[in-house]
Amino acid sequence: MTSRCKIIQLPKIADPRGNLTFIEENRHVPFEIKRVYYLYDVPGGETRAGHAHKKLQQFVIAVSGSFDVIVNDGFEKKRHHLNRSYSGLYIPPMMWREIVNFSSASVCLVLASELYDEKDYIRNFATFRAMTKRTHALRSPRKRMAAY
Amino acid sequence: MTSRCKIIQLPKIADPRGNLTFIEENRHVPFEIKRVYYLYDVPGGETRAGHAHKKLQQFVIAVSGSFDVIVNDGFEKKRHHLNRSYSGLYIPPMMWREIVNFSSASVCLVLASELYDEKDYIRNFATFRAMTKRTHALRSPRKRMAAY
Repeated sequence: MTSRCKIIQLPKIADPRGNLTFIEENRHVPFEIKRVYYLYDVPGGETRAGHAHKKLQQFVIAVSGSFDVIVNDGFEKKRHHLNRSYSGLYIPPMMWREIVNFSSASVCLVLASELYDEKDYIRNFATFRAMTKRTHALRSPRKRMAAY
Repeated sequence: MTSRCKIIQLPKIADPRGNLTFIEENRHVPFEIKRVYYLYDVPGGETRAGHAHKKLQQFVIAVSGSFDVIVNDGFEKKRHHLNRSYSGLYIPPMMWREIVNFSSASVCLVLASELYDEKDYIRNFATFRAMTKRTHALRSPRKRMAAY
């Protein structure tokens, strides 16, 4: 269910000298922050990503400019437009994501629950879809029984 | 010694669709990342900060635009101009810092080794100076003996 992805409002300390937003692990995001990465110098209108993670949880913020994050759990798609420095999108494991429609000079900041691990990536959508079908099937009680 | 502050070059994955830089805890920065905060909507030419921390370690990056970080260990001052998304300044504990000369539309990203704790702040420079003098004195062997 794409509703497992959640927009989280962050604290914003407003000040005429500039605004400040902070994110603490296990408080504003439901995981320990082990890695931080960011996308920048993205040409306007560009598309990134197109993959899912087996275990990794992420939190995505448009700290500058705007972009859309399209999440897909293998059954349904949802598009989130991010354009505020003080809110972000939580993405749980097993969620295909694409980041599209970057505005010029945008910066996409991502907090991640794990260190980089290539084995955690699912880069093929058909593989991802097959994996989610299996999980989905196991969620149905009759199918779950049949699996034993 | 302000040389305890270090510019750290970060990985940059260059791509025509946009560049990516990542920072892993205990690898690119010498601490666990517990908190992330960022300053944005800072009017050009503005000044922030002016405090030190007893224990907190931080890593400061200009993910967009530029600014200068002036660090002061109580004895000497050093100014660092940050204007690259793929390098940042490590600031150890007991280092007074000011962030000045913000360019318009700049974003200052900070990774921190601890959760927020008001008791860790030193907000008065005279107090900070007195504390560093004491530490400095204790570093001298004769003074260290005298302290016992």
